[in-house]
Amino acid sequence: MSAHSVYLEDDCRFEYNREDLVARLGQVLANPEALITNEEALRAYETDGLAAYRQLPVAAVLPDTVEEVQAILRICNELEVPVVARGAGTSLSAGALPHPQGILLSLSRFNRILDVDAERRVARVQPGVRNLAVSEAAAPYGLYYAPDPSSQIACSIGGNVAENAGGVHCLKYGLTIHNVLEVTLVTIDGEVLKIGSEAPDAPGYDMLAAIIGSEGMLGVVVEVAVKLLPEPLTKKVMLAAFPTVEAGGEAVAGIIGDGIIPGGLEMMDNAAIRAAEDFVHAGYPVDAATILICELDGSEAEVAAQCAQVSKLMESYGATEIRIAETPEQAQAFWAGRKAAFPAVGRISPDYYCMDGTIPRKHLSTVLNRMQALSEEYGLRVVNVFHAGDGNLHPLVLYDGNVPGELERTEELGGRILELCVEVGGTVTGEHGVGMEKINQMCAQFSPPELEQFFALKRAFDPKGLLNPGKAIPTLNRCAEFGAMHVHKGELPFPDIERF
Amino acid sequence: MSAHSVYLEDDCRFEYNREDLVARLGQVLANPEALITNEEALRAYETDGLAAYRQLPVAAVLPDTVEEVQAILRICNELEVPVVARGAGTSLSAGALPHPQGILLSLSRFNRILDVDAERRVARVQPGVRNLAVSEAAAPYGLYYAPDPSSQIACSIGGNVAENAGGVHCLKYGLTIHNVLEVTLVTIDGEVLKIGSEAPDAPGYDMLAAIIGSEGMLGVVVEVAVKLLPEPLTKKVMLAAFPTVEAGGEAVAGIIGDGIIPGGLEMMDNAAIRAAEDFVHAGYPVDAATILICELDGSEAEVAAQCAQVSKLMESYGATEIRIAETPEQAQAFWAGRKAAFPAVGRISPDYYCMDGTIPRKHLSTVLNRMQALSEEYGLRVVNVFHAGDGNLHPLVLYDGNVPGELERTEELGGRILELCVEVGGTVTGEHGVGMEKINQMCAQFSPPELEQFFALKRAFDPKGLLNPGKAIPTLNRCAEFGAMHVHKGELPFPDIERF
Repeated sequence: MSAHSVYLEDDCRFEYNREDLVARLGQVLANPEALITNEEALRAYETDGLAAYRQLPVAAVLPDTVEEVQAILRICNELEVPVVARGAGTSLSAGALPHPQGILLSLSRFNRILDVDAERRVARVQPGVRNLAVSEAAAPYGLYYAPDPSSQIACSIGGNVAENAGGVHCLKYGLTIHNVLEVTLVTIDGEVLKIGSEAPDAPGYDMLAAIIGSEGMLGVVVEVAVKLLPEPLTKKVMLAAFPTVEAGGEAVAGIIGDGIIPGGLEMMDNAAIRAAEDFVHAGYPVDAATILICELDGSEAEVAAQCAQVSKLMESYGATEIRIAETPEQAQAFWAGRKAAFPAVGRISPDYYCMDGTIPRKHLSTVLNRMQALSEEYGLRVVNVFHAGDGNLHPLVLYDGNVPGELERTEELGGRILELCVEVGGTVTGEHGVGMEKINQMCAQFSPPELEQFFALKRAFDPKGLLNPGKAIPTLNRCAEFGAMHVHKGELPFPDIERF
Repeated sequence: MSAHSVYLEDDCRFEYNREDLVARLGQVLANPEALITNEEALRAYETDGLAAYRQLPVAAVLPDTVEEVQAILRICNELEVPVVARGAGTSLSAGALPHPQGILLSLSRFNRILDVDAERRVARVQPGVRNLAVSEAAAPYGLYYAPDPSSQIACSIGGNVAENAGGVHCLKYGLTIHNVLEVTLVTIDGEVLKIGSEAPDAPGYDMLAAIIGSEGMLGVVVEVAVKLLPEPLTKKVMLAAFPTVEAGGEAVAGIIGDGIIPGGLEMMDNAAIRAAEDFVHAGYPVDAATILICELDGSEAEVAAQCAQVSKLMESYGATEIRIAETPEQAQAFWAGRKAAFPAVGRISPDYYCMDGTIPRKHLSTVLNRMQALSEEYGLRVVNVFHAGDGNLHPLVLYDGNVPGELERTEELGGRILELCVEVGGTVTGEHGVGMEKINQMCAQFSPPELEQFFALKRAFDPKGLLNPGKAIPTLNRCAEFGAMHVHKGELPFPDIERF
């Protein structure tokens, strides 16, 4: 697959002596293996989960302690060197793509669970801890950590914080922002800040939400306190088949509209059902136009009542078949196909492009139908498997990167799909972040005064613009270049705004 | 009652021509009654819900439109005039106390409900709309707005946003921050920003949380989009009496520890029970050391199951009596005493000082007992009626402002109570904000780099420090003066930090 050239000249204005940088980094890292400058070894960091974007950094550092992170950032601040922090590198929006003039700061050695306090229901973990490992550590106490991105076996809590990760259960239990209580942040000048609190309404400006989802552009998180929830007393998983995409979409809106918030409410279209069934043999109804997987959780009485209510609703929206898992094994089978859907699609196409848009639930059927028409127009298959309950679509566009022009056509189709999301009142990013992938689209998303306020906030944390430059919030030069902002006679609309 | 002199010289460094200011304000306000400079009329604004603090502003303005707010802020920005925004003026921490050199910006004419969208479950309202009016407007659709501060008949949504207000139901349904989707903010330089989104994870830095609870120090909110929730299918209210304060406190920790999140879980001590009973004759057990009022909501089945579980728990913690409301009238009676508790206390004492601390639930009984000892030590009665479920205490210290020295002794006792909260791992502010009341205590709450980061954030929104100066986040001069920060040889610890 061909890789993109993505950084603009404007993103690459850093001048410093590379040998000096490497020498000084070496002085502050106790472990000689914590500093990587060898090109072959650096290849491990040149891309993240969005493999279409590749870039080698100048060096990679793997600090072991907070003090080392402080020392690294102080050096970078002094020499004006870009810093891209990286967790497990599973970002789907190139959020951890290295900067060509910068260092890659891996948090992989920050992999300890520091404390699980069952009474306060709080776990304190380092950012390199895997998402699933938190729930595993909490399980002996009957507790778990709610956000569960598809990559939860691999992705790190630090990366989850950077991208405000969601998952199947975020419909009921919220995104990362709703499940993190406090972070310890090292600022670019090496100060350590505690941001957030275990208390419900801590004094001071609430900066936690600004940090979460900021894609490493405001500081480097070195510790995270997360909320643990009690395991639901009981769970029930249902699978319903619908004869049309419309019926499935309307059932989703109907369930939520009736006041039920399921633990998870996922939708798969026929292409996804078939791909998953071929791969894991979950026993899915392969002739259904669409299936819904609905997980209800709570007390026995609550779940039984909701289960009856949801069944009745699904019937009223035309479900041709409703299955209710009677054993944990059956429940697991219902989920197996959904969880294996992405790799299953990987088996039927050389490449696929995973998108991430949100739409108001009531427009689900319209959008799915129009996406089908776009798929036919471009001659590219689109597979849909997504978080229907919160209107978070993940269309997978199937293509072959070795066929000349197919990646470009895929990206064009992707652009049309995202325009469709915006047209019905949605957004172009659900839970995967902006990173480098969607940076140009952000020029249209924000008004100039909004961008100006973002820059002001950025400067409040990172006055020299060294943290993950070029990501998440577009510079005015980028917006001028990509034509999304109105430029008069070659001049930028805000010549007085400082740039990054 | 004697009023405090609270602004420091450092807060009052503004120099401008008052006549020029008034003339220019007059030019931008269409309605001549929208500009108040007459001292008698200004008295209406000299204090808020914390009457111990009084200050007349230079002028008050009551704009009718967003354009007028923009024009007012542009004038204040140009002339460098402090601006204190005010909703209904019910703040209990003097958050809306006028600045002696500033204007008071009343949002009382921004009192329209712009839209109630039942399908999207969103209401768009102006900031001067009363909290309860939102639920009233949503009621025909079976929806309501969850945060319900005690002052909900009077307090405004704009004030709720400024203080991140809570209420009885915030245990289950969250604070204002969890129920606001988007705000429209006018910046000090007159720009209009949309901050937040109806989408689950909007792109860009998440600045909404920083705005909510920022006490009008980052901008002026002129529109708020709030989340509406479906009315619970059913509700059950229970009242349980306990023979000791310990037993009640332990029952609270036990209920939450057992995985139940009630819609509300309130506690009243004997003094509060008696005061309320004398006032509204709710039929409370006046010999109980403490009562718990527990509201359970959800589906029929869920509520019935939880009700049985809570009853059993309360019995196991020694409840001497458990009543379950069988009719809406009974439920209302259980709540009547709690809701009337503050005015009831007002009947038995010339003055009272309402405090607002949080503690970990497990320390409830310890703190209540030690508070009793402190009350005896100071010879001042302390009445407790509070949000037990989330550990948010509201001790009411009873005093007589006409007895020389009694206010001072009350404040000293208040300080000791807050120290006690901090000692057990709590905070000195729960849901009433910092305002002017707790500003000095904030010097101890934050580390110098944390304060520095707050100042940087403040500058990103308000470079000249004009919005509500002197509140919420203490200046370094204030901290030096009040001794909470270490000062060497008369120098501030951070001479290089810009000041407000």
